[in-house]
Amino acid sequence: MENYNRQNGNAKSVGVVCVTSGGTTVPLEQRCVRYIDNFSSGNRGAASTEYFSILISSGYAVIFVHRRGSCQPYCRYLPEDSFLEFFEVLNDSEIQVSFAQLLTKLAVNGGFLLKLPFTTIFEYLQIIQVVATSLSCLGPRGMFYLAAAVSDFYVPWENMAKHKIQSAAGPLDMRLTQVPKMLRILRTDWAPSAFCVSFKLETDSEILLQKAESALRKYQMHVVVANELATYKREVIAVSLDGKISIRKQSEDADVEEQLIKLLVEKHNKYIECCGMG
Amino acid sequence: MENYNRQNGNAKSVGVVCVTSGGTTVPLEQRCVRYIDNFSSGNRGAASTEYFSILISSGYAVIFVHRRGSCQPYCRYLPEDSFLEFFEVLNDSEIQVSFAQLLTKLAVNGGFLLKLPFTTIFEYLQIIQVVATSLSCLGPRGMFYLAAAVSDFYVPWENMAKHKIQSAAGPLDMRLTQVPKMLRILRTDWAPSAFCVSFKLETDSEILLQKAESALRKYQMHVVVANELATYKREVIAVSLDGKISIRKQSEDADVEEQLIKLLVEKHNKYIECCGMG
Repeated sequence: MENYNRQNGNAKSVGVVCVTSGGTTVPLEQRCVRYIDNFSSGNRGAASTEYFSILISSGYAVIFVHRRGSCQPYCRYLPEDSFLEFFEVLNDSEIQVSFAQLLTKLAVNGGFLLKLPFTTIFEYLQIIQVVATSLSCLGPRGMFYLAAAVSDFYVPWENMAKHKIQSAAGPLDMRLTQVPKMLRILRTDWAPSAFCVSFKLETDSEILLQKAESALRKYQMHVVVANELATYKREVIAVSLDGKISIRKQSEDADVEEQLIKLLVEKHNKYIECCGMG
Repeated sequence: MENYNRQNGNAKSVGVVCVTSGGTTVPLEQRCVRYIDNFSSGNRGAASTEYFSILISSGYAVIFVHRRGSCQPYCRYLPEDSFLEFFEVLNDSEIQVSFAQLLTKLAVNGGFLLKLPFTTIFEYLQIIQVVATSLSCLGPRGMFYLAAAVSDFYVPWENMAKHKIQSAAGPLDMRLTQVPKMLRILRTDWAPSAFCVSFKLETDSEILLQKAESALRKYQMHVVVANELATYKREVIAVSLDGKISIRKQSEDADVEEQLIKLLVEKHNKYIECCGMG
């Protein structure tokens, strides 16, 4: 934890970041057949985990809280489909798999990567609470990078249909309740000194920045990363009290996450210094 | 198509079966961030495809209409998780992959297996229409085995929120419309001579058989396979105008689909005979 230095503006720190990734589900029935899901491949979280990782550049140990079956770090360039398809292009892919496997093993066995899977919003909230209260002992050296697409609405257990909803009775009216705002509790109770980065995804560019600024104030985030559905793979805007920084990927092969993580690591290091722990 | 014989009660026919597998999704927004999904691993459809297949026993060419990313035939015993995890148990798994790959290649290259993927209910319905009208030229030799978990409710495009639904405005009320009953149109318009098997899944055992019998009459199915969420992996009931036949798997390693497909192939052969094409 004391291994901290700054050289040529390239900040290095050893910290722990909790990266959340992929979408949470909301069951609609107690004996669940149907559920609401959030679109998210988990690619952002997986890529970010790589750039945070001590193996590549930024020197963080990563707790990767991810949706079961979503994109995994070091495997992003492997084909998405079942691995049978993948095996048809044997030679190159075998090398890719071996390399990905090696990096994952190094990270996991070295204690730099802990993978925790979730499916429902309920599992997700429980995991974040456990991770946050465990990380609170690190104070400002802990970071949350909340890229998961977390459900905004859910059906409370007592309102949930016990059995599969029947389709014979005409249209289906559903009332969904707002999910309690976890970000607020994270900041005030679970890990009040940790550096917190949340994401704001919108499909409407006109309200995006306003929503991001509102989240920054309301939940006392240190950074809110604003992104739009149509362009989220190539552009994000990091919104903080210092202002807005737009980040675009600079070539077809680049990851927008590389620059984003660099910026966040710098901001996190300044934050640690300000807290008197630099 | 003329290669049909019956020996010792072990019916063999060359036909084409359309197996549907996995769950369909229903988008909740036009620029879709959230959607309703149906629980379904696709294991039943994948297993059934194997037992229908000309490679193993029943002599059918299979059109495997499946949810993207769901369980695939010949791969059912491979680990579910990402293939990195799988690679840790190298030797046995490599043999399994090679075998699965060989079978899939034989089936696809031999023209006995056509894989068509879907995600939304809209894609699913379009694919079924195309497959059904294409198979109608086979008359009674065509079969539909509709194991997919198809959404019962959807949001019509014109009622759909254009952008991501905002969470600030309190609870969310949604009205979902019933999906038109595709089974009826399949039987009356698209492929009226095909042999049709649909599935009825319920979580409440008390209404299961009543629902299955009702579907049999209402949609003029030839067989409705009734199954309960808690026991669907080990027990199904084949409901037809001839009566109900309960099928349980006979050992831990057996597939309930093996006996089910055997029964359905027998029924299909009788149906072809009755139609004067045996």
